[in-house]
Amino acid sequence: ADDLDLLGDPGSDVTPYDAALPRLHQLDKGEVHRMDLTISEEEKEVAPGVRQKVWTFGGSAPGPVLHGEVGDTFVVTVTNKGSEAHGIDFHAGSLAPDEVMRPIPPGESLVYRFTATRAGIWMYHCSSMPMSVHIANGMFGAVVIEPPDLPEVDRSYVLVQSEQYFGPQDGSADPEKVAGEQPDTVVFNGYPNQYDHSPLRARVGERVRMWVLDAGPSRGTAFHVVGTQFDTVYSEGSYLLDHGDGGSQALALAPAQGGFVEMTFPEPGHYPFVSHVMIDAERGAHGLFAVTR
Amino acid sequence: ADDLDLLGDPGSDVTPYDAALPRLHQLDKGEVHRMDLTISEEEKEVAPGVRQKVWTFGGSAPGPVLHGEVGDTFVVTVTNKGSEAHGIDFHAGSLAPDEVMRPIPPGESLVYRFTATRAGIWMYHCSSMPMSVHIANGMFGAVVIEPPDLPEVDRSYVLVQSEQYFGPQDGSADPEKVAGEQPDTVVFNGYPNQYDHSPLRARVGERVRMWVLDAGPSRGTAFHVVGTQFDTVYSEGSYLLDHGDGGSQALALAPAQGGFVEMTFPEPGHYPFVSHVMIDAERGAHGLFAVTR
Amino acid sequence: ADDLDLLGDPGSDVTPYDAALPRLHQLDKGEVHRMDLTISEEEKEVAPGVRQKVWTFGGSAPGPVLHGEVGDTFVVTVTNKGSEAHGIDFHAGSLAPDEVMRPIPPGESLVYRFTATRAGIWMYHCSSMPMSVHIANGMFGAVVIEPPDLPEVDRSYVLVQSEQYFGPQDGSADPEKVAGEQPDTVVFNGYPNQYDHSPLRARVGERVRMWVLDAGPSRGTAFHVVGTQFDTVYSEGSYLLDHGDGGSQALALAPAQGGFVEMTFPEPGHYPFVSHVMIDAERGAHGLFAVTR
Ligand SMILES: [Cu+2]
Ligand SMILES: [Cu+2]
Ligand SMILES: [Cu+2]
Ligand SMILES: [Cu+2]
Ligand SMILES: [Cu+2]
Ligand SMILES: [Cu+2]
Ligand code: NA
Ligand code: NA
Ligand code: NA
Ligand code: NA
Ligand code: NA
Ligand code: NA
Ligand SMILES: [Zn+2]
Ligand SMILES: [Zn+2]
Ligand SMILES: [Zn+2]
Ligand SMILES: [Zn+2]
Ligand SMILES: [Zn+2]
Ligand SMILES: [Zn+2]
Ligand SMILES: [Zn+2]
Ligand SMILES: [Zn+2]
Ligand SMILES: [Zn+2]
Repeated sequence: ADDLDLLGDPGSDVTPYDAALPRLHQLDKGEVHRMDLTISEEEKEVAPGVRQKVWTFGGSAPGPVLHGEVGDTFVVTVTNKGSEAHGIDFHAGSLAPDEVMRPIPPGESLVYRFTATRAGIWMYHCSSMPMSVHIANGMFGAVVIEPPDLPEVDRSYVLVQSEQYFGPQDGSADPEKVAGEQPDTVVFNGYPNQYDHSPLRARVGERVRMWVLDAGPSRGTAFHVVGTQFDTVYSEGSYLLDHGDGGSQALALAPAQGGFVEMTFPEPGHYPFVSHVMIDAERGAHGLFAVTR
Repeated sequence: ADDLDLLGDPGSDVTPYDAALPRLHQLDKGEVHRMDLTISEEEKEVAPGVRQKVWTFGGSAPGPVLHGEVGDTFVVTVTNKGSEAHGIDFHAGSLAPDEVMRPIPPGESLVYRFTATRAGIWMYHCSSMPMSVHIANGMFGAVVIEPPDLPEVDRSYVLVQSEQYFGPQDGSADPEKVAGEQPDTVVFNGYPNQYDHSPLRARVGERVRMWVLDAGPSRGTAFHVVGTQFDTVYSEGSYLLDHGDGGSQALALAPAQGGFVEMTFPEPGHYPFVSHVMIDAERGAHGLFAVTR
Repeated sequence: ADDLDLLGDPGSDVTPYDAALPRLHQLDKGEVHRMDLTISEEEKEVAPGVRQKVWTFGGSAPGPVLHGEVGDTFVVTVTNKGSEAHGIDFHAGSLAPDEVMRPIPPGESLVYRFTATRAGIWMYHCSSMPMSVHIANGMFGAVVIEPPDLPEVDRSYVLVQSEQYFGPQDGSADPEKVAGEQPDTVVFNGYPNQYDHSPLRARVGERVRMWVLDAGPSRGTAFHVVGTQFDTVYSEGSYLLDHGDGGSQALALAPAQGGFVEMTFPEPGHYPFVSHVMIDAERGAHGLFAVTR
């Protein structure tokens, strides 16, 4: 990875991960979300010029965002179409790990059912050993569970920070780099600097909520948006800042922590967002809001 | 340490550190706890197949948990039976460091008296230079001071996370590994994965309080319990989460920070606890709750 | 830097950075602070025996502390007297980055105007790439914005933690050390251990407020004062601890986070302050309070 050009253009077959979080439909309390989640191996471009065989939930790394509210139940049929055993651990549910988090052999399935009893942005990830390598190779995602009284905002986005530790071209994550804490990149939603090329959108004066999850496997984040300030910060299930005199410049999250921040943009322009762990911003934990009237 | 087998069985002379925190006796306010705390050198197994000459408070690393409530006074006679100077610093007390934290020559004692005026889980550690090496070699522990209105729970435990940097077999912590930030392990209560072999116990539906201290010397933690969620989080003297709609999946602590989390287990099973800094979980910051009806 | 002696005496031309934060004058609401801030290259002693060509705002690293209250406006004329392009980013203001944070060519100026609408201790830093290196080479500082109801205290100080990555003698920060996360030192207010030689002052019983900002570029802090405890903690715009039963032993900040802690000293003596990331304390993130009656 010596000649890694993080600022290069993504290949023509790279689609940005859709960071937008749609508004929740208004259904009955206690809704049941049924879904299939397929574990697959995908050869993908994961950084400009770098192709890896990643392991995914649902075809992308991160996997899809699951979204509901307190009281909802999720019934997820997980099928392993990969070539080795994988499993899954949803932090959003509370249940004995023994059965549902077991390794799923290639070609087999299990049904993982949980009720989301507490709000937050919860990590999910592969439960097979070594988990650091399975996460590093793409097996992670977010479940957003809204509290009952969450105010509506104009736009919501989700960013999941993670590290990449590249193996050889067309190979998979390098376990020695993972163990040696030598990431090649640190990224939002699976690809370095992708939202510099495909900026997130907002309009002047809109209230924007950014849900952020740190998936690690091993590094925290200090999430910051250049040119604006957070007036609301919710972290790990409670408000740290909520309409007071103070403001926040960075949301610090350790691996497996998540929360959201809210902000408005005072005028049109380009507002970068970064991990203010500056070396990680320069490893690819960087993107842009393009703000218009 | 290239052939370190962290998942091997502990030797037959290894006793798990008792993580249980007994209920406080109900005595008068302002109780005085008098105790002896002996600094000693101990050759011990500190990981499967690894023996080191550790420096201890009270014979174990971590040292004993001191436990009281706001208003209690501790009168600790510290005697140095080691072969070089050591001292002690109790974060739980407030007093000028000049006298009580001074180096104690081998064979000498001092009396360290402090009143615990504020609640929390407070670190204590050797005050001799270089402190990073004295801590790495075993000289740390916890003081738990309960606030006046702390609700009773069914079970309380204490976990102290620290790093180990092994010197040669039968030697002491390697200062170059400490300075180079290259830990061999990250552990709870002084031995990697010990509670995988000797799980902590709980019953379905019990409220379990886990006090957690990060002793470092240099790495933080993201304390997580697989399969359950924290509905109560107390960190550095105040509640971050207390019976709301939200839940927490990880308690992040920097070195010298502490707090507690509370959880219940919904069904019988084996619930791992880890630092979700995944590389550290794989270095030994891993254990189990065995939950029965 | 193998023979770096962090505990050596500062050279005779080294002046400690003044950590005292003067009381705010009582002027009208919405005051306008007008100031010049000159970017310059300075050859300075930055550690005992180490001279570097640092890049500064206002001649020192960190730059000057800007200080106001919610509602104040700052009109800062930034002039680049360095030999390459630099810019500035004030977290304390909210505005589109496009114009005001642009690179300023050598010899040119811009006017950066912002109104401080939210309280906190906010980072400012060079906005030119690679920011990690510009910050590492000295281009950072703090803006303290007091909330309307901030209680008066007896003394206020400001400490900015940062890392140094030395290039060759008389050179500038080494980009490879920055990228490799191999700091030579971690320091408060720009020079290792400077307040061991020139202690901060306080009197027994006084309430001391310490504002702390972590400027990185890449490491967090666990700010601790030996021998006392924090009874008040304000972080990123809100109180984490405010006159309860609990106390705090360490304020954890990620890069670009800030806050303040309050403490009193119970008796005369020398109370060290450190980052309790112990390896960083030993790299120079250490100082002293000298407390007298
Ligand atoms: Cu997997
Ligand atoms: Cu997990
Ligand atoms: Cu010692
Ligand atoms: Cu300490
Ligand atoms: Cu610059
Ligand atoms: Cu910044
Ligand atoms: Na619903
Ligand atoms: Na990006
Ligand atoms: Na008592
Ligand atoms: Na364990
Ligand atoms: Na004013
Ligand atoms: Na100092
Ligand atoms: Zn739904
Ligand atoms: Zn797998
Ligand atoms: Zn644009
Ligand atoms: Zn007692
Ligand atoms: Zn010693
Ligand atoms: Zn069992
Ligand atoms: Zn003023
Ligand atoms: Zn520059
Ligand atoms: Zn003195």
